[in-house]
Amino acid sequence: MLPFERVAIIGMGLIGSSLARAVRALMPTVRLTVHDADADVRARVLALDLADDVTDTAAAAVVDADLVVLCVPVRAMRAIAESFAADLSPGAVVSDVGSVKGQVLTDLGAVLPKGVALVPAHPVAGTEKSGPDAGFATLFANRWCILTPGPDADPAAVARVDAFWTRLGANVETMTPAHHDMVLAVTSHLPHLIAYSIVGTASDLEGVTSSEVIKYSAGGFRDFTRIAASDPVMWRDVFLTNKDAVLDVLQRFSEDLTALQRAIRWGDGEFLEALFTRTRAVRRTIIDAGQDTDADDFGRPHGS
Amino acid sequence: MLPFERVAIIGMGLIGSSLARAVRALMPTVRLTVHDADADVRARVLALDLADDVTDTAAAAVVDADLVVLCVPVRAMRAIAESFAADLSPGAVVSDVGSVKGQVLTDLGAVLPKGVALVPAHPVAGTEKSGPDAGFATLFANRWCILTPGPDADPAAVARVDAFWTRLGANVETMTPAHHDMVLAVTSHLPHLIAYSIVGTASDLEGVTSSEVIKYSAGGFRDFTRIAASDPVMWRDVFLTNKDAVLDVLQRFSEDLTALQRAIRWGDGEFLEALFTRTRAVRRTIIDAGQDTDADDFGRPHGS
Repeated sequence: MLPFERVAIIGMGLIGSSLARAVRALMPTVRLTVHDADADVRARVLALDLADDVTDTAAAAVVDADLVVLCVPVRAMRAIAESFAADLSPGAVVSDVGSVKGQVLTDLGAVLPKGVALVPAHPVAGTEKSGPDAGFATLFANRWCILTPGPDADPAAVARVDAFWTRLGANVETMTPAHHDMVLAVTSHLPHLIAYSIVGTASDLEGVTSSEVIKYSAGGFRDFTRIAASDPVMWRDVFLTNKDAVLDVLQRFSEDLTALQRAIRWGDGEFLEALFTRTRAVRRTIIDAGQDTDADDFGRPHGS
Repeated sequence: MLPFERVAIIGMGLIGSSLARAVRALMPTVRLTVHDADADVRARVLALDLADDVTDTAAAAVVDADLVVLCVPVRAMRAIAESFAADLSPGAVVSDVGSVKGQVLTDLGAVLPKGVALVPAHPVAGTEKSGPDAGFATLFANRWCILTPGPDADPAAVARVDAFWTRLGANVETMTPAHHDMVLAVTSHLPHLIAYSIVGTASDLEGVTSSEVIKYSAGGFRDFTRIAASDPVMWRDVFLTNKDAVLDVLQRFSEDLTALQRAIRWGDGEFLEALFTRTRAVRRTIIDAGQDTDADDFGRPHGS
């Protein structure tokens, strides 16, 4: 039995359009209605034939849906949920894919009517691309999807959202919003912040031209530019809504970086080699866990 | 006409063994003699049939060579060069592939005899893997190779080393060692330092388990682990021998990161979005310059 029969997706960027494609591919009998605030995106979704219906308003999309998934930047969620709250069917489940969960639980909890179940979710998957053309059906396969229901969440609704993501190929885990926000601050938000920062630094240096930074980027820098090419608005919202956890891990990172700086200044080769040996082992663990490819250089093409 | 006819490679790790394979593929008539200090590596090189001769000492490898390329960690170069200096043929050219050039020019210049030309080089290419099995012939194709001859270098020798790397598919650029060391501090050494640091930080946090870091690494963290899996000894030597330039760009990075930290603390969304929009454009420039793939997520496999 399908966990949901009529799914509405609000926001058809990389994640929303991947979700639409995955639902089509893996639950083809689901009736899929989608909305995006941008008329150009709606036209593109129609042209790509990603859904049964594309509506001009979020409210029109959620009528009759038994699952509504918000795939918009974190700070946009509350206003959109407010716009469709009155049109939700009784018993509908509302979920989302936001990268920050404490704020989402608060914002959506404040505007959703009684009789509607809220089950926030975060599929930990993505690419650096944006928009409906960037999505693909296998984005969530073998990735983790974290559910962060509030303390009063309906267990049946949580189980249905769990079944929904499991059907899409994801591994599902449940944790508190606060723990999610700390874990993701480490594994996702800090890496993005560092990448954005270093790409900014490299572009601004006197003494080294932009052209030189580009030409010799294969020495390591280019890797950071991929992450730093991620959607600016989505990431702005992540940092503004997970401020405390991000500032906390950033402080830890800065301390560790200062220790490394000191080791370089004092020529402490043993400290450096010990750290670099330890970090190499972390890579191996990630590959063994199936969370990255073992191919050299991520399998990038070499040669012509 | 071939720029060199008898090439000796000292050190058969990722770069040395890639160079051997590239020479075999693109200059098959070159007589190739190689050495590695590690007997297991030498045995593996024999088994892989990567050279015409594998010698037990560096001195035996350089006899009769018209080009000797040192492919060992930067701080190992001087002692090895000293061990074979007396065996070099008059007119031989000595080069290397080290990631730091000021120190190499000083160290090799101090021990090479008169009548031998020194032309330090740095092919800006690599992967996170190490050892003779990790190399491949196309590693240098469409990558830049930077030559950093000293002020008294023989122009004919520089031209021959240029021709050698051009034949291997690289684009060749010449600059001073000091400028090289500053440019690479930005495009390669700082990115590696940051990656090593963040992987260390993430492994050490209380409140977030290692298992969680691994599971949710697809949120961005896993990208850093690739770079942080690079050879520990090679990178230890890079930081110890390019100390001033690395500390200089690290200081700049720390300032920029502090500005970002402040923007998050004060909720300055405009600052964040403007930076993230600018960094996205840098990625585009690197792809347009042919220095990275445009494939989503580096072309990593998704799904099963």
